[in-house]
Amino acid sequence: MLFFEIRIIINIGYETDNSKLVKLKTKIHSSLRTVEWKNNAVVMIDQTKLPNKLVFVKYTDYKDVANAIRTLVVRGAPAIGISGAFGLALAALQSKAKSKEKLLEDLEKARNTLFETRPTAINLAWGLDKIMKVANKSNNVTEIKKLIIQTAKKMAEEDIETNMNMGKHGAALFENNDRIMTHCNAGALATVGYGTALGVIRATKESGKKIKVIATETRPVMQGSRLTAFELKHDGIDVSLIPDTAVGYAMFKGLVNKVIVGADRILRTGHVYNKIGTYQVAMMAKQHNIPFYVAAPLSTFDLKSNPEDVIIEQRNRSEVTQIGDRKTAPDDIDVINPAFDMTPPELITGIITEVGIAKPSFEESIKKLFKSKM
Amino acid sequence: MLFFEIRIIINIGYETDNSKLVKLKTKIHSSLRTVEWKNNAVVMIDQTKLPNKLVFVKYTDYKDVANAIRTLVVRGAPAIGISGAFGLALAALQSKAKSKEKLLEDLEKARNTLFETRPTAINLAWGLDKIMKVANKSNNVTEIKKLIIQTAKKMAEEDIETNMNMGKHGAALFENNDRIMTHCNAGALATVGYGTALGVIRATKESGKKIKVIATETRPVMQGSRLTAFELKHDGIDVSLIPDTAVGYAMFKGLVNKVIVGADRILRTGHVYNKIGTYQVAMMAKQHNIPFYVAAPLSTFDLKSNPEDVIIEQRNRSEVTQIGDRKTAPDDIDVINPAFDMTPPELITGIITEVGIAKPSFEESIKKLFKSKM
Repeated sequence: MLFFEIRIIINIGYETDNSKLVKLKTKIHSSLRTVEWKNNAVVMIDQTKLPNKLVFVKYTDYKDVANAIRTLVVRGAPAIGISGAFGLALAALQSKAKSKEKLLEDLEKARNTLFETRPTAINLAWGLDKIMKVANKSNNVTEIKKLIIQTAKKMAEEDIETNMNMGKHGAALFENNDRIMTHCNAGALATVGYGTALGVIRATKESGKKIKVIATETRPVMQGSRLTAFELKHDGIDVSLIPDTAVGYAMFKGLVNKVIVGADRILRTGHVYNKIGTYQVAMMAKQHNIPFYVAAPLSTFDLKSNPEDVIIEQRNRSEVTQIGDRKTAPDDIDVINPAFDMTPPELITGIITEVGIAKPSFEESIKKLFKSKM
Repeated sequence: MLFFEIRIIINIGYETDNSKLVKLKTKIHSSLRTVEWKNNAVVMIDQTKLPNKLVFVKYTDYKDVANAIRTLVVRGAPAIGISGAFGLALAALQSKAKSKEKLLEDLEKARNTLFETRPTAINLAWGLDKIMKVANKSNNVTEIKKLIIQTAKKMAEEDIETNMNMGKHGAALFENNDRIMTHCNAGALATVGYGTALGVIRATKESGKKIKVIATETRPVMQGSRLTAFELKHDGIDVSLIPDTAVGYAMFKGLVNKVIVGADRILRTGHVYNKIGTYQVAMMAKQHNIPFYVAAPLSTFDLKSNPEDVIIEQRNRSEVTQIGDRKTAPDDIDVINPAFDMTPPELITGIITEVGIAKPSFEESIKKLFKSKM
């Protein structure tokens, strides 16, 4: 029942009031709660303010949630899946529809607005579709609204449970004195809480093993320095920050003996779509004989698509040409700024899920994991 | 006599006055002159201000030159070699010594101050030693001062000539429609002018071939976005900027078919020390069957050291934890911030010098190049 214990700890540090913006000035002595349903509103940590300020934002309009996903107030595949579900719950509450048909129409519109914010991350589609299915199956307006909120809240709780199970499976792969590299943020801040890749790191530490973590900065949005370094330090886990350019150096120098990352989408073949830069971290790991693990819930798997079907989002050039107000590149320079890259299965040692670990050959192994869940 | 033509073009755009800080408001329609001896002073482009402002600074105290090297006002192996030489010329002018012995003492002290600023880059030692040799061989105070200045100025002229020769040799390796990746800045701004790796790119374009350049941002100091993107755009060369995390993506997608970088130190075995991140660019190139070239003058070669002798500088943590005044990582986070990494010879296709191209096996090939010069 570790799960309930953690929820309680989280609530100790949590403050809310009626204002739209709630600032937490006291230090929270627990893992962070990224997104939450509270009094018919969605409350999120504004991750664009980290690591300078820990600020919570509260939304009652689904369009604000869509905007939050688009502008990376909330990010990380599992977190945006749940945020999408909560967005639809808000849309249901906002709808003035008197009939089921009209409400479904409103929800469909909201679904499209929410989906278009981050099309590559499969969890967003997963979260939205799960809610739409519940809505379609319900009998009337009151029931739809009630069941959508109930389902979205349950999905959030299950996300933490999933991560803790993933942690349990994953921790077995790590040993005392491991030096673990991670890229981007697949942490509490990428999920509802606890984290996927960082959940495995948390579970490894909780199992009594001594570990060191090396976090890559993860340009351009710097989720590694802003979020991973922040949340691991917050939890008292030994973490060092490196620029993305020092991945090869760190591996060559023996500062790293394992790598773990999250994922935004995993195909049935084991192709992993994750934050730009993951591919080269995986390739460098392979060349240095360092095991490379991916941690992601089954909701991250896209069993239908082939690699050629997946479109990789290009993000705004300003992410690369300026930091805050500070210009870091000449005016009008051409920029290539892909959000994700694809890591092929041959570079991956194992994929850690809540029901077990997939190993090569992945197509078979992934199939088995899905069967075990049914 | 292309060499003289370029000097003249540079002077058209150049303005100077008696103030310590000279701002150029008009656009210079030519390749940039990074460091120059002018009226018994050293004039440099302040590269920390780029790409926002093109500012020239003027120094008459060698300690200011040392500080400029330390704080990256001037950077790039060849440019700091010449800056070191000019620093010693200033030290000679500043010395009140009446005897050769006393002047040599003053110069030795200045040499040490200048050397300690960037110990890994071999060109700094090369530039300082060349001047010290001239000083030691001269007969008296007046002659030493005169010859030091003369030698340093000649070294600056030779640097541009060297780069143009390097360009001539290197351009033959590149073809029409090549898509060339470069890391860091091995450009006009890393040398006295024209550049090493970017000199080859300039020469390729001047030879009539159509090329596209992809510049990596090069965290943490962002020489790629601030300097390479700036100077190539300035010269009308097609350039796109990518974050360092997108190297693998760009290669996988076929956006790159050749790589060229500069070097801070090259051993007789062909081990190349260059800006942090070079190693992983080279490794990724190898894995994608993309030729990886290094362009550097013979003054960059260290024929005495072995890989285990070379100490890689660790730079200030603040380069990784903040950009300008903007904090990008949590307080007191541990940081690993190496200035350089080592690329082993097996990842290198060729090393372009002013006297020809070294190819595997490098130890033999490099030996031949040095013999051809004697």
